[in-house]
Amino acid sequence: MSESLHGVFIGIPKEEIDTPALLIDLDIMESNIRKMADFFSTVNADLRPHTKTHKTPIIAHKQIEAGAIGVTCAKLGEAEAMVHAGIRDILIANQIVGKQKIARLINLANHSDIMVAVDDPHNVNQLSAAAQAKGVTLRVLIEVNIGMDRCGTEPGAPTLELAQHILKSEALRFEGLMGYEGHTVANPSLIERKIATEKSMTLLVDTKHLLEENGIPVKIMSGGGTGTHKITGAFPEMTEVQAGSYVFIDATYRNVEGGGDQFDCSLSVLTTVISRPNPTRVIVDAGLKMLAKEFGVPQPIGIDGLEMIGLSEEHGRMTADASVDLTPGDKLELLPTHCCTTVNLHDCYYGIRDGVVESVWEIAARGKSQ
Amino acid sequence: MSESLHGVFIGIPKEEIDTPALLIDLDIMESNIRKMADFFSTVNADLRPHTKTHKTPIIAHKQIEAGAIGVTCAKLGEAEAMVHAGIRDILIANQIVGKQKIARLINLANHSDIMVAVDDPHNVNQLSAAAQAKGVTLRVLIEVNIGMDRCGTEPGAPTLELAQHILKSEALRFEGLMGYEGHTVANPSLIERKIATEKSMTLLVDTKHLLEENGIPVKIMSGGGTGTHKITGAFPEMTEVQAGSYVFIDATYRNVEGGGDQFDCSLSVLTTVISRPNPTRVIVDAGLKMLAKEFGVPQPIGIDGLEMIGLSEEHGRMTADASVDLTPGDKLELLPTHCCTTVNLHDCYYGIRDGVVESVWEIAARGKSQ
Repeated sequence: MSESLHGVFIGIPKEEIDTPALLIDLDIMESNIRKMADFFSTVNADLRPHTKTHKTPIIAHKQIEAGAIGVTCAKLGEAEAMVHAGIRDILIANQIVGKQKIARLINLANHSDIMVAVDDPHNVNQLSAAAQAKGVTLRVLIEVNIGMDRCGTEPGAPTLELAQHILKSEALRFEGLMGYEGHTVANPSLIERKIATEKSMTLLVDTKHLLEENGIPVKIMSGGGTGTHKITGAFPEMTEVQAGSYVFIDATYRNVEGGGDQFDCSLSVLTTVISRPNPTRVIVDAGLKMLAKEFGVPQPIGIDGLEMIGLSEEHGRMTADASVDLTPGDKLELLPTHCCTTVNLHDCYYGIRDGVVESVWEIAARGKSQ
Repeated sequence: MSESLHGVFIGIPKEEIDTPALLIDLDIMESNIRKMADFFSTVNADLRPHTKTHKTPIIAHKQIEAGAIGVTCAKLGEAEAMVHAGIRDILIANQIVGKQKIARLINLANHSDIMVAVDDPHNVNQLSAAAQAKGVTLRVLIEVNIGMDRCGTEPGAPTLELAQHILKSEALRFEGLMGYEGHTVANPSLIERKIATEKSMTLLVDTKHLLEENGIPVKIMSGGGTGTHKITGAFPEMTEVQAGSYVFIDATYRNVEGGGDQFDCSLSVLTTVISRPNPTRVIVDAGLKMLAKEFGVPQPIGIDGLEMIGLSEEHGRMTADASVDLTPGDKLELLPTHCCTTVNLHDCYYGIRDGVVESVWEIAARGKSQ
């Protein structure tokens, strides 16, 4: 939908929105933002929420208004969308690689206070050369592999070595370390998650101490997610936590004890029943092109006796008790199982309060994976 | 990317495209279009290719130039994108339900020759009333459930009953039957697929005969996909086949014996290595937000000793033999496992010929699931 058409929807009842459509319950989202801000007012670490979840500047601004120190972005294109909307303090929690992206990053640094993750000395050299040529100083964090086995230097000596290399790079400023405990962040068991997270964070903290023993100040220590915000956020050495999903909470995160379950679900996909071929089968108009499935099929909200059993490209297939009163044209909401990838399938949110559309927001960084 | 910027990329070498990016090998795609057209010149059925795969008018026009009689669309928004690009003969192979969508459909009928699937008498009444009010005649097919257990009337008497109901609806024209053997279309085993498809098509053909015995002409018989085009297309009673994936062929379809394996893979996602943390691990910059995973992880093209083991939101994780010569900044192509849902994650295609960008095409119906 063209942004110029958003206004048409303001004030209409939720039930009149055409489907499939992505809805935010604004009261719940605002409450989630407040709850997370409240937690971070009690610990040493600050909140730098991840925009990969919502990809939308106005939500990022609300998080900052509530106390967040800036935002975390997954990709350069996401960071550009945030900078264009006036957000200055940004961590790109990823490696920016290649001539074109490095040029974009260095140019964006003239319009923002941007930090980027590194894990490779050649990438460091390229970033430094580009920053120097442009006359800017770029802030970098080293991404350390603390158990997820994705990107990142190994803890200890390899990280020290890269830090020493960065310190020799004139146009870069070494700010600290970043480690993401992504392998455990959505583990529903609090005790398992706590043990794994503490093990990961200890690797990161020990590496910080090693750098300091070698005379390298480590100002920033960044990590964590919604599932681990209370564990990682409670480490006195951690300065920033990158939680994102807490604004929405999906069917996966709401079962994460002592993590996602501290918040409520604010995101849903409104669908229409397009077929009720027999009493036990209900087909809705949203499938894989509107709903992510990698963490399981979404769940119908507020209707007993109805279960989603499959998604094809444009259909959701449900089994129903014969007593379920749904016929073609009826609308129902589905709770996504992965909010971040579901949001990336939509062009806009309909913000709902008191059953009525209060706002339509373009998802400005949707698809901005470059 | 704004369409006004597409021209910037024309003529640059493939390796210089920033990533992640969706590439089409134009020679291969054109050859696939020709091969399918050649097959349909030998059988009674015509080809009405499904645009859900490519969602892009220029590719639909190429299919029509090669002999297709029109297009099949999954959603009304997809059909609107095609009509806006001058395509007139369209089947929406889905139920159009609800006041707003029916209004859009009826208005679109003034600018195209559109058909729509129905499976419910109340929906038929609503379509008829809306068409009558606007003074248009709407063409309808009954969707029959031939074994997929999704939408559709049951074969035989229930379908006859709905056809009789449609005949009483002044503003509707009953054109025929549609049945999709989606439960078997991607079965790699030719013999299993043939048995299941023939069983399905027999249900559809028997229902056609039942209608005819009751004095109802059945002009159109529509079904099939890339995996079953030779089986369904060879039924003398079938008049139209809805194959879509053949233009691209993904890692799933290329293993469908006597179906997808008749074509070659023309679609890939270009990625950049962003981290090589150790000799056995390679991380690229494309994850779930650029690549569908419901049929498995995509496969690296043309590099031995490299295997994709997982996708997170913005990362692809691969294991590598130590001998694999890839460092951050190197680019490689991935073969999607599901072309249709992968395309829906991208804003444009880069059309490649002789290693150079020849065209950049907006994916006009991306995200148009309404």
